[in-house]
Amino acid sequence: MSNFILASSSPRRQDILNQIGIKFKVIKSNVSENISEECSPEEYVKILSERKAKAVFDNISEKDTVVIGADTIVVYNNEILGKPENKKDAFKTLRMLQGNKHTVYTAISVFYKSLDGNVSSKTVSDKTDVYISSLSDGEILNYIEFGEPMDKAGSYAVQEKGALFIERIEGDFYTVVGLSPSKLYNIFNTMGIKIEF
Amino acid sequence: MSNFILASSSPRRQDILNQIGIKFKVIKSNVSENISEECSPEEYVKILSERKAKAVFDNISEKDTVVIGADTIVVYNNEILGKPENKKDAFKTLRMLQGNKHTVYTAISVFYKSLDGNVSSKTVSDKTDVYISSLSDGEILNYIEFGEPMDKAGSYAVQEKGALFIERIEGDFYTVVGLSPSKLYNIFNTMGIKIEF
Repeated sequence: MSNFILASSSPRRQDILNQIGIKFKVIKSNVSENISEECSPEEYVKILSERKAKAVFDNISEKDTVVIGADTIVVYNNEILGKPENKKDAFKTLRMLQGNKHTVYTAISVFYKSLDGNVSSKTVSDKTDVYISSLSDGEILNYIEFGEPMDKAGSYAVQEKGALFIERIEGDFYTVVGLSPSKLYNIFNTMGIKIEF
Repeated sequence: MSNFILASSSPRRQDILNQIGIKFKVIKSNVSENISEECSPEEYVKILSERKAKAVFDNISEKDTVVIGADTIVVYNNEILGKPENKKDAFKTLRMLQGNKHTVYTAISVFYKSLDGNVSSKTVSDKTDVYISSLSDGEILNYIEFGEPMDKAGSYAVQEKGALFIERIEGDFYTVVGLSPSKLYNIFNTMGIKIEF
């Protein structure tokens, strides 16, 4: 297989690459996450995932190397909800999301330098609708005290205890977690990148 | 917390209970999985999950004990697809499911003997639609050779490498894995069973 580099320090994304049997190194990109122009949620995650992957790829000289970047946001009522700044912020977010539908956007960017030195790249975005159960303030406070919401976009983790509160989704589950294996596999196939089974 | 018993030896269901922080023992029920009467997919999984949970619960004398049973089937074109009998069977199943939508049904049964000795039980079923990508025969054969399909209903595992082939779902992801935390939590709430955060 090629050399794979994940341009993200997210443990969730690392778990997903392990799950699908890809051996990889992590190189965190220290790019700005600010976007000055007005843009749609799709454009927002595409700009950031491409920025992350490109920053790491630009420092790579080795051939047959694949750099993977990704970015995830939670959108409710046209508002982008990032990671909570504090417990109060997490409470406000979860109180807003409970009993409602919101949408999670994840973009994946792949930059590839082939064995013969050709460079190519591709970025795709995907979205999934998530329906959270009705929750009491007590349930929200317990969940925040448990500690899970603090480093998560939207203040919950669908692949951890947050699963207790997720009624249903429409789309790709792993888009909510932060990196979709099937979308990544599609990109690899169109770019001629092989993975082993 | 109460004493929790999982009446299933499925490692996937054990992972899910661990994920939501429930400490439990496993007691496998050795009940027959044959159903003689004609029934709908919902009835089918409800009968089997209740049979599994009840068989284990009937041997429990301890108070404040919760027994959890579950059953999962994959349905395509009105046909129930169980675990494949051999590689040829897995190939036939995956070739049928690729490029199409199928439905996964999971029922959960909870039997509870409370602190004051009262016995109650509840069974619910849930279904999720799953869309598998178009796959070549080569991709299916590689996946089977990798070994994942052999002990899985429908011949794939959404929470393992099979994620490469899952385009989208409509419903609860964990219903596809085999035990939904949110449906279990709802049952616990209606039965007065508390879990800690």
